Amino acid sequence: MTDAATMIRAKRDGHRLADDDIRWLFEAYARHEVADEQMSALLMAIYFRGLDGAELRTWTAAMVASGDRLDLSGIAKPTVDKHSTGGVGDKVSLILAPLVASCGAAVPQLSGRGLGHTGGTLDKLESIPGFRAGLTPDETLAVLASVGCVICAAGSGLAPADRRLYALRDVTGTVESIPLIASSIMSKKIAEGTSALVLDVKVGTGAFMKSQEAARELAETMVALGEEHQVRTRALLTAMDVPLGRAVGNAVEVAESVAALQGNGPADLMAVTLALARQMLALAGLAGDTAGDPAAAIADGRALAAYRAMVRAQGGDPDAPLPRAAFTQVLPAPVDGWLTGLDALAVGTAAWRLGAGRARKEDSVSAAAGVICLAKPGDRVQAGQPLLELRADEPERFGPALAAVADAIAIGQDGPPPRVCPVIEYIPPA
Amino acid sequence: MTDAATMIRAKRDGHRLADDDIRWLFEAYARHEVADEQMSALLMAIYFRGLDGAELRTWTAAMVASGDRLDLSGIAKPTVDKHSTGGVGDKVSLILAPLVASCGAAVPQLSGRGLGHTGGTLDKLESIPGFRAGLTPDETLAVLASVGCVICAAGSGLAPADRRLYALRDVTGTVESIPLIASSIMSKKIAEGTSALVLDVKVGTGAFMKSQEAARELAETMVALGEEHQVRTRALLTAMDVPLGRAVGNAVEVAESVAALQGNGPADLMAVTLALARQMLALAGLAGDTAGDPAAAIADGRALAAYRAMVRAQGGDPDAPLPRAAFTQVLPAPVDGWLTGLDALAVGTAAWRLGAGRARKEDSVSAAAGVICLAKPGDRVQAGQPLLELRADEPERFGPALAAVADAIAIGQDGPPPRVCPVIEYIPPA
Repeated sequence: MTDAATMIRAKRDGHRLADDDIRWLFEAYARHEVADEQMSALLMAIYFRGLDGAELRTWTAAMVASGDRLDLSGIAKPTVDKHSTGGVGDKVSLILAPLVASCGAAVPQLSGRGLGHTGGTLDKLESIPGFRAGLTPDETLAVLASVGCVICAAGSGLAPADRRLYALRDVTGTVESIPLIASSIMSKKIAEGTSALVLDVKVGTGAFMKSQEAARELAETMVALGEEHQVRTRALLTAMDVPLGRAVGNAVEVAESVAALQGNGPADLMAVTLALARQMLALAGLAGDTAGDPAAAIADGRALAAYRAMVRAQGGDPDAPLPRAAFTQVLPAPVDGWLTGLDALAVGTAAWRLGAGRARKEDSVSAAAGVICLAKPGDRVQAGQPLLELRADEPERFGPALAAVADAIAIGQDGPPPRVCPVIEYIPPA
Repeated sequence: MTDAATMIRAKRDGHRLADDDIRWLFEAYARHEVADEQMSALLMAIYFRGLDGAELRTWTAAMVASGDRLDLSGIAKPTVDKHSTGGVGDKVSLILAPLVASCGAAVPQLSGRGLGHTGGTLDKLESIPGFRAGLTPDETLAVLASVGCVICAAGSGLAPADRRLYALRDVTGTVESIPLIASSIMSKKIAEGTSALVLDVKVGTGAFMKSQEAARELAETMVALGEEHQVRTRALLTAMDVPLGRAVGNAVEVAESVAALQGNGPADLMAVTLALARQMLALAGLAGDTAGDPAAAIADGRALAAYRAMVRAQGGDPDAPLPRAAFTQVLPAPVDGWLTGLDALAVGTAAWRLGAGRARKEDSVSAAAGVICLAKPGDRVQAGQPLLELRADEPERFGPALAAVADAIAIGQDGPPPRVCPVIEYIPPA
C-alpha cells in the first residue's frame, strides 16, 4: 500500500504514479484521508513533472469514477457535445446546441459557470427571464429527449473529485497544467455520457492557451483521453486574439446569439460555429444527410425553433425582453485609420469589471453588463467614432473598465489588415 | 497588496518573492488567511525553484518574527549552541552540552523530538528516570544560569510558524529542500537567542544529506543565515555512513554518553564531540583558556559533573538504573574476515523498528529498545561472533528489525579497511 506523502515524493522526483496508487489516491481523497494540503502539493509536483499518457488516462478515469455517469442510452438520437476552453465573447454554445439538435443529433451540454474574464454559458442563459440552468438528471434527460438539446449545470454528482480539485487548483497556482486541464475537462464530459465530443481549443491573448503549440498539446491530450474512454473526440484550434462576434457579457451575448440563429451573425462567430457544427454532425454520423447541413438549418429557421423550444423547456421566455443596463459609456477612436487590433483579454477584463463576470465562485453576475464592440479589426474608423460601448448597472464600474481597455485598441494607417478566419487547425485522433 | 495564489504562481514561474510579500505571507498564515493547501503548494514550488539568499533571509526572519525570542542577556557567560542534522547513534549533544559548559560557556540547547530513524536527543534523555524535557522559559533560563547548560524542548512560543510548516512539509513531500531545511533549523536557533552556533551537518547513508555537495550547500546556507541574523555560526561536515559510537537507541545512548564523559568513549564519537567542542569554545572566545580544553574537562571529571548537575536540575536521577529491555537477540557474523561496512541507515531503521523511534509525532518511544554495535568497521570478526545486539520490549519486534539489517553488514577478506576520521570538513562564513 502507498500513502499520499510517498506518492507526492515519487511525482516530485519524476517517477510514474502506478495505476493502483492513483485509484487509491482518489478514493482516499473522497474519504478525506488524503488532505487538501497533500493534494495541492501533488498538483504542484504534477505542474512541474507532468503526467504521462497512461497516468493521465488512469487519473481521468478515477475522477470519472468519483461520481455518477449520466445514462444517455435512452436517447434515440446520436449524442454529441462541444466544449470550449473559454474565450471572450464566446457564445457559440447558445447557437451550436440548438443548431446541431435541429440537424438530428442530441446535444447534452452540461456546463460550468464562468470564472474570470471569459464568462460562462450558464450565466449568459440565465439572463433570459425564467431560464433555469439547474436541472435534475431526470429533467436534463427529459429536455434532451424532447427538444434534442439541453444546456444546464453539471450536477454535483458528476466527477465530484474535479469540483474539489478545481477549487483547490484555483487558489494554489496549479490551474495552468495541461494534464490537469485535460483531465478536468474530459472527466466531466466522459461522466456526462456523450458518445461524441468536439473540442474548441482557443488560442491567443484572450484564451487560456497563449501559444498555438500549447493549445495543440492540450487538444491532442484531450482527443486521446476521449478516445481512450470510448468518446469519439475531435478538436479545432480557433483564434482568440479578438472578441468573438461583437457582444461580450451575458444578455448582450444572448441577443447576438438569437441574431445569429436568425441568420444575422457576425462572420467570425459564424465561421467558428459552423465549423464546430460540421464536426459534431460528422461525428454523429449525420453529415451526409440533407437535414445535416447547419447553414440550411439556420436559413430555414429550424435552429431558431430548437433554441426557442430549449429555452421554454428550461423555464425561460424566449420572447421576454432581456435586461438592459442602466448606464452606458462609449470609447471613441482617438485617430482616423484602420482598426488593426482589439485585444480580447482587455475587452474581457473590461466586461468582467463592468459586472458581467465573477471574481469568486460565490459572486453573482450582472445580466445586463458588458461590452459591445462597435468596430472589429479590419474596419475603417474615424477619430471620435465610438469603438466600444460599455454597459453597467452602476456608473462607478466605468473607470476600472475603461482602464482595462486603455491599450486594447490599435489603429494603423497602412490600409486594412487582412481578415483572418478564426478556425486555425483540425486535431484528429493520433 | 499581494495574495497567496499570486505568490505561488510567481514562485512556480521562477520569480523572486518580494520581502514585503514574504512578511505578509507569514502574518496571513498566522491569521489562517493563507490556507495550509496554499502553503503546501508554495513549499512545493520552492522545492523546485528554491529561494535566493535575500528571499531566504527574509523568509527565516519572518519565521523568527512569528513568535517569541528567548532573552539570554541575563546569562553572564558567552552563549553557544550546537545543532546536528541528525544521525544514527548521534548522542553528541548529551556529552557536548555539559562538556562545553564545564569549559566556561553557557549552552542553551533547545531541541526537537526525533522522527524517523535518527532518534531525538530529548527522547534519549527522557529514558533517565525523572528527567523533564519540557521546561518553562523561566526554568530553562534558571537551569542554564546555574548549571551552564540545559537540554530541553523548544517551547511552542519559539518560531511557531516553523512548527506548522514542518508538520505540513512532513506530509506533503517538501522536507528535502535546502532552503526550507536551513530556514527551519536556523529560525529556531535564532529565536533561541544563542550568540553563537556550531552546526554538525551529517553526510552519508544514515544522514539526511546523502552527498557531500548537498551537505556543504546546506552548511554554507545555514552559516550565512546565522551570520545575517547576528549569530556567529560555523559548521562541520561529519560522516554518517556508520553509526556513531556503538549504541543506537535511547537508554543505551545515555549509557554510552556517560561512559564517554568518564573518558571511555569510542574513538569516532569522541573525534566528532571534541571537534565540535573546540569550535564552540572558539566561537565563545574561550579557546585560548586552559579551562577551555575539552579533553582536559573530560579527564578531570568536570564535564561529567556538569552532566550530573544538568540531569538533576531537570528532575532526573543520574544514579538511577536505566531501563533495560526484556528481550535481546544477537546477529552473528556469517563468515570470518574484516568488518568493512555497517550501514547506518539499516541500523537506524532496525532501532526504530525495535521501538526506539517514532513513526508519527504523537507516538511514544521505548526507552530500552535499541541496537548495540558489538563490532565496528575495521574490526577483525570470526564466523558466529555476535556483531549486533538487538534489544526490545516485545519479541515480535525482532523479525522486522533483523530484516532491516539483513544487508547492513559487509565483511571483507583483504585486511583491515582504513579507519577514517568522521570529521570531514570545516565550513567557515563566506
